[in-house]
Amino acid sequence: MRQLTIALLCAAPLFSQPVTVDGDWVAVTSFFDMKDYNRLTLHQQGSEITGAAGNLKLTGAIHGRDVEMEGKDERGATASFKGVVANGEIIGDATWRGNPQKFRAYRPSARPADEPRRRKFEPTEFQRYFSGAIAPVLHIYPGDTVETWSVDAGGFDPKNVRRSLGGNPETGPFYIEGALPGDTLAVKFSRIRLNRDTAISSGRIAASALNPNYLANLKHPEKYDSNWKLDREKGIGRLANPTGKLKNYTVPLHPMLGCVGVAPPGKMVYLSGFLGPFGGNMDYNKIREGVTVYLPVFEPGALLFMGDGHAAQGDGELTGNALETSMDIEFTVDLILNKSTPGPRAEDDEYLMAMGIGGSLNDALQGSTTNLSRWLEQDYGLDPSKIASVLGTGMQYDIAEVVDPYVNIVAKIRKGALASLPKVK
Amino acid sequence: MRQLTIALLCAAPLFSQPVTVDGDWVAVTSFFDMKDYNRLTLHQQGSEITGAAGNLKLTGAIHGRDVEMEGKDERGATASFKGVVANGEIIGDATWRGNPQKFRAYRPSARPADEPRRRKFEPTEFQRYFSGAIAPVLHIYPGDTVETWSVDAGGFDPKNVRRSLGGNPETGPFYIEGALPGDTLAVKFSRIRLNRDTAISSGRIAASALNPNYLANLKHPEKYDSNWKLDREKGIGRLANPTGKLKNYTVPLHPMLGCVGVAPPGKMVYLSGFLGPFGGNMDYNKIREGVTVYLPVFEPGALLFMGDGHAAQGDGELTGNALETSMDIEFTVDLILNKSTPGPRAEDDEYLMAMGIGGSLNDALQGSTTNLSRWLEQDYGLDPSKIASVLGTGMQYDIAEVVDPYVNIVAKIRKGALASLPKVK
Amino acid sequence: MRQLTIALLCAAPLFSQPVTVDGDWVAVTSFFDMKDYNRLTLHQQGSEITGAAGNLKLTGAIHGRDVEMEGKDERGATASFKGVVANGEIIGDATWRGNPQKFRAYRPSARPADEPRRRKFEPTEFQRYFSGAIAPVLHIYPGDTVETWSVDAGGFDPKNVRRSLGGNPETGPFYIEGALPGDTLAVKFSRIRLNRDTAISSGRIAASALNPNYLANLKHPEKYDSNWKLDREKGIGRLANPTGKLKNYTVPLHPMLGCVGVAPPGKMVYLSGFLGPFGGNMDYNKIREGVTVYLPVFEPGALLFMGDGHAAQGDGELTGNALETSMDIEFTVDLILNKSTPGPRAEDDEYLMAMGIGGSLNDALQGSTTNLSRWLEQDYGLDPSKIASVLGTGMQYDIAEVVDPYVNIVAKIRKGALASLPKVK
Amino acid sequence: MRQLTIALLCAAPLFSQPVTVDGDWVAVTSFFDMKDYNRLTLHQQGSEITGAAGNLKLTGAIHGRDVEMEGKDERGATASFKGVVANGEIIGDATWRGNPQKFRAYRPSARPADEPRRRKFEPTEFQRYFSGAIAPVLHIYPGDTVETWSVDAGGFDPKNVRRSLGGNPETGPFYIEGALPGDTLAVKFSRIRLNRDTAISSGRIAASALNPNYLANLKHPEKYDSNWKLDREKGIGRLANPTGKLKNYTVPLHPMLGCVGVAPPGKMVYLSGFLGPFGGNMDYNKIREGVTVYLPVFEPGALLFMGDGHAAQGDGELTGNALETSMDIEFTVDLILNKSTPGPRAEDDEYLMAMGIGGSLNDALQGSTTNLSRWLEQDYGLDPSKIASVLGTGMQYDIAEVVDPYVNIVAKIRKGALASLPKVK
Repeated sequence: MRQLTIALLCAAPLFSQPVTVDGDWVAVTSFFDMKDYNRLTLHQQGSEITGAAGNLKLTGAIHGRDVEMEGKDERGATASFKGVVANGEIIGDATWRGNPQKFRAYRPSARPADEPRRRKFEPTEFQRYFSGAIAPVLHIYPGDTVETWSVDAGGFDPKNVRRSLGGNPETGPFYIEGALPGDTLAVKFSRIRLNRDTAISSGRIAASALNPNYLANLKHPEKYDSNWKLDREKGIGRLANPTGKLKNYTVPLHPMLGCVGVAPPGKMVYLSGFLGPFGGNMDYNKIREGVTVYLPVFEPGALLFMGDGHAAQGDGELTGNALETSMDIEFTVDLILNKSTPGPRAEDDEYLMAMGIGGSLNDALQGSTTNLSRWLEQDYGLDPSKIASVLGTGMQYDIAEVVDPYVNIVAKIRKGALASLPKVK
Repeated sequence: MRQLTIALLCAAPLFSQPVTVDGDWVAVTSFFDMKDYNRLTLHQQGSEITGAAGNLKLTGAIHGRDVEMEGKDERGATASFKGVVANGEIIGDATWRGNPQKFRAYRPSARPADEPRRRKFEPTEFQRYFSGAIAPVLHIYPGDTVETWSVDAGGFDPKNVRRSLGGNPETGPFYIEGALPGDTLAVKFSRIRLNRDTAISSGRIAASALNPNYLANLKHPEKYDSNWKLDREKGIGRLANPTGKLKNYTVPLHPMLGCVGVAPPGKMVYLSGFLGPFGGNMDYNKIREGVTVYLPVFEPGALLFMGDGHAAQGDGELTGNALETSMDIEFTVDLILNKSTPGPRAEDDEYLMAMGIGGSLNDALQGSTTNLSRWLEQDYGLDPSKIASVLGTGMQYDIAEVVDPYVNIVAKIRKGALASLPKVK
Repeated sequence: MRQLTIALLCAAPLFSQPVTVDGDWVAVTSFFDMKDYNRLTLHQQGSEITGAAGNLKLTGAIHGRDVEMEGKDERGATASFKGVVANGEIIGDATWRGNPQKFRAYRPSARPADEPRRRKFEPTEFQRYFSGAIAPVLHIYPGDTVETWSVDAGGFDPKNVRRSLGGNPETGPFYIEGALPGDTLAVKFSRIRLNRDTAISSGRIAASALNPNYLANLKHPEKYDSNWKLDREKGIGRLANPTGKLKNYTVPLHPMLGCVGVAPPGKMVYLSGFLGPFGGNMDYNKIREGVTVYLPVFEPGALLFMGDGHAAQGDGELTGNALETSMDIEFTVDLILNKSTPGPRAEDDEYLMAMGIGGSLNDALQGSTTNLSRWLEQDYGLDPSKIASVLGTGMQYDIAEVVDPYVNIVAKIRKGALASLPKVK
Repeated sequence: MRQLTIALLCAAPLFSQPVTVDGDWVAVTSFFDMKDYNRLTLHQQGSEITGAAGNLKLTGAIHGRDVEMEGKDERGATASFKGVVANGEIIGDATWRGNPQKFRAYRPSARPADEPRRRKFEPTEFQRYFSGAIAPVLHIYPGDTVETWSVDAGGFDPKNVRRSLGGNPETGPFYIEGALPGDTLAVKFSRIRLNRDTAISSGRIAASALNPNYLANLKHPEKYDSNWKLDREKGIGRLANPTGKLKNYTVPLHPMLGCVGVAPPGKMVYLSGFLGPFGGNMDYNKIREGVTVYLPVFEPGALLFMGDGHAAQGDGELTGNALETSMDIEFTVDLILNKSTPGPRAEDDEYLMAMGIGGSLNDALQGSTTNLSRWLEQDYGLDPSKIASVLGTGMQYDIAEVVDPYVNIVAKIRKGALASLPKVK
């Protein structure tokens, strides 16, 4: 709606001045129901046009509002376009590798002069899905910082008021202006802090994490109170009503977010208990204050979701519920243009962390090793044997979680171990 | 046959002194080819005998050399024995739960007065199997300390002389006097130190640790030198002939033993690349100087093997060969009598570590969670829900290795987290 | 909003005749964004109401259009309702177990007198998602038969004209009147037949189905034509352009549907390459003419999709593409009310087949054994040991497919093996 | 012992006639404790020797009893030998690729004239291990047929007399003269028949084959009689004491052998419940009368074991015990020289069957697909894409068993599907 309004407001002046296509565009080509997004730069000199979109080099001409272009990429694949400039957009028909496509190009959004770089967002609705079909709650730009908060996994807010059904209701989605499929979104969390004094949990280890014969003979006590109290000052949690041997049991609190995700690939819609290449319910206990999370962008604007705060969580999120609580959050977004990752990654002061999310521990381990291998390949230009020398001596695995629809293993390496390696510029 | 002959030959002198069965014995009952070992304590008053072996309470009588006993355990299962004392042993026929068995009891071994508690063992042969059929190189007693060394995984000694074929040739086996099946052997390593300046490794990540589609397209350089130099003073390793980006790459050295094992259960014989409930080639990079390794005992004397030193190793031993080198070792053994573990465990200043060794990451993870759960159950008397609260908040997983015939995942918990929990006495 | 407007407009005529709530309803209760569907039967005598919805027994009263009811289930949980009859619906506020809910009840749909029981449906659009958000193409009733056809997995129709992007475009969805969440949909396929003479396939075994070390050294020929010709008369397929050793290679054709699915649970949206408890891309080569497929219903109307015809397919769909072709289809639907299954099932003349769909072969195998166990428990009233005797002697596994986002293993048993077992009535 | 006797008997004549090395030998080279076996053929003309062992071409000379040879293989690797002919053997020192080795060559064994080709073997001891260290019970030659029988998995014979502890006690091992590591042993079973009227089983599905959450809530009846009666005439089994719904339950009997194995590789020793590349406890219900089993040879003589008869078994051997019974067996052995397989294979009238034995279903599936792929490559010379076309359309998987220390998946293809393919000669 917002886009359209701007377009209509701008429409009148356009007719009165000569039409130009010079400058940057976002080109959208459609083949059946599939849309492809590319950054397009055109240079106009008189009626002549030259330009580029990714590997494609373009030449063409503009006469009045009529535009024609042809292009070829480095492998010799050809493209052509014929259409008009209308309403600030270039619209028409294209062919790409012989397939006829609908074509539309629009100007990338620029930050309005009056928009602050730092925003406070007070959530009122919470999303139970990772989906590109949910209207964004806020449009922000690379470099912007947002201060907000999340309900707990069951939908309860900092005052323990129910605000949503459970299943990791999310704060967001935030639309990051300029983000296109193929980019990487970087989300740096400068604040992940407790904002209440209680957490809920559960009193059973996930059946799938125990030896089947041990499981078949396990007798749980009939009643067990797995609520927790959080001492925010001391950074310590204790059972709300501990009994017997656990009377004095305490755990150090390490507030983290179980969920950070973007709109999934292929326009799929997942409940917010799911995880995948889009991140989501990764339940990794190193997603703490100070971390930067990297996620591949699958939809324009990326659509960033976050939630599922844990006051503390062991590896694997063994009990299905960690110490579930609401959370204060502050984050800053950035974009790495035209560069994608095979899966979520993260970075803190100490480690590069590459996630492998899969249907089995085996798939997850293979995915994480590969994700980290490719990171070294992309950023340091190492060949497979050099990667083997580095990972073989210094890689560590974390088993982030084993209780969700997919499991998550993280391959990580100390940044210190890479200090001597020259980076690919 | 041999035993019997000896008994008969020695029988004569025995008649000259009064026979007593009072005191401690090791009882061996045989059913077909299966031997069962139990500690047996008898009290003799005149001709009357009372006693116990595990849960079995015994009463009986001795007349001259003839002994008869009957017993019942707490569930009402019955046992009977009839035999003779000969040559310092009790020999005869027993029935146990209706099954006829051969019975033999011998006196447990006591340390000879002149045997030192501290031994230096210079290995000359190296074992390529974990097996109970290999003759022990040294008999030691609980509390004894042994100073020794190991060749590297390829059989090369501290002077780089080949002493064996490769495949983790082991130092040992050491026979621990008093160890019986059902006990736990504790091996505290007070020294695991480098004794040469070179290590070999390999330049490929194990195929099974990479995403299959990534693997199918991987191109390794044709030649790659994966030998390493070890700077023992600085505790740093570097490639012997580094090229390109790795010119200045160094790794901190953390000497460890890839193999610590005992004779496997069921009289099986495994190559020393294998691992299992008996430990073996566990390749866990926390088996460093200062650690205590706990292993279940499956054969009398346990038969302790060790080897496969690594100067440094990332998680998973991704390259199949870590930085393989020979090692100086010093260890002290102890026994936890009549108490077994579901798998290998370890302990250092910081952590309790429970290993899960299995054919898949899933089995290994289930095994490790279960092994640690049972540790908390055995040592702290926690019920399953309390265990869930403790592990759910504080457990960590390490993926020790993924390249051997079985994989090894370690579930560990900080000892500090358990400090408030009263121990089962 | 729309409903309310209609209700207000229609309100006037309603006052002129006596309002009755007697008879069958579908009750929809809403708690936050979650909707619960139940069959509700009310008996009205004068102003008094009695009724039942599942285990809930209801009593209440109607005065004019105002309705009040209270209820209790067998465990003592209570419900209450207060609202009005308007526009043929009962609308108001309910509480259930203390939670306030929105309530709406409508009359179940009955087949209009002029609607035929046999329908021919000519598809014009094809769905690339399993989703409850897609508008149904046809509403049908239990017992109805539909004759239709599907494009191939790449979107090509019987005349090899591209009608959609690839990825298993589906025919449907069909809305089955009367189907509610908690029911089981039965789809009997009386016709799955080839309708063209070509199929496409691929020339590589999925990387994940091969030993990693074998894979790492595999050299495929640079060019390979994996198109097939289908001889419908002889029921035989051959490569379109076979070379060398495969010159005379033929395969028997067994036309099947790779995809049969309903709207997924939790309002999730999956690309049509996915599978799950909702069925979908199960790729099981026994889904042939004559089979009945059972699927749990997750959305009102179930929303039935089908497509991805294969002229022939080995176990596992090893090559990712089987012999992909368009297909003529005829099916009849039925409903098993108020009875759900833990996953897709199927039945033909010979076998009961229970699917296990999971992220790993291990999960899938466990799921399929459990699905078949529960079938025997539900339909034959067997206890776990009797189930063990039956499955231990007669169960067979099929590995349906291993190349999609989840794998599918089928546990099946001959119906003959169960012939002597009395069924639960 | 037997070998030695022959050697001594032959010793005298050798000294009286000129020494010749002409003809076939078995060459054994030893490096540390590793022995390598090769077929060696020498041609002697006067004092000149030429010959070949595998890819190695040899030239040399004999002077009196002194022999010297040199060799080179196709890649240029060199060998040399210096030694003597003594006692019918060639003994001395060799070098191979620079490594000094002990060398010994002996004449292959030939069938004595008076040895029948058909033997009846009455077992008196039963082996609970697959091991190359067990003395063979019978030496047989390729083409020989043996008639024998096996006890059941618990050690009970055809008269239900206990003859051994349980755990699949084996009949054998049989030493196949001429078998060397690198060969394949073919065992054709012409008879696998029931020889008594009872079988034992168990009344629980293996915990690992059920969904963990289903398992955690499973309640088995306290008592359950899982003994079976076998009606050999009708080929039908029924529970010995059936109750309730299973009163009339019967199963068709398909007698099979759970175990067929040879001495394991690497001189390892496994309990007879294990399986691996050596076969063993494969528990595949197609190992029935008429099948030929192919096993790689790892030790001279192969050492063939068999046992663990099942009157009937569903896929996976879900209950751990199938219908366990003793069995009458008749088999004929053959050798495929100098050709190995990556794992056990089998063949009957209908199928080629390739086993994949691994620690997880994933490893087993990959192993079986690879084993069958390599079969098509070895015997039909197909390239990977052609293999994909054949397996993608016609391969089937059987899940043989999931309850033993390793799991076993079988990839099979109808022989009819391969009928049009020319075989590699």
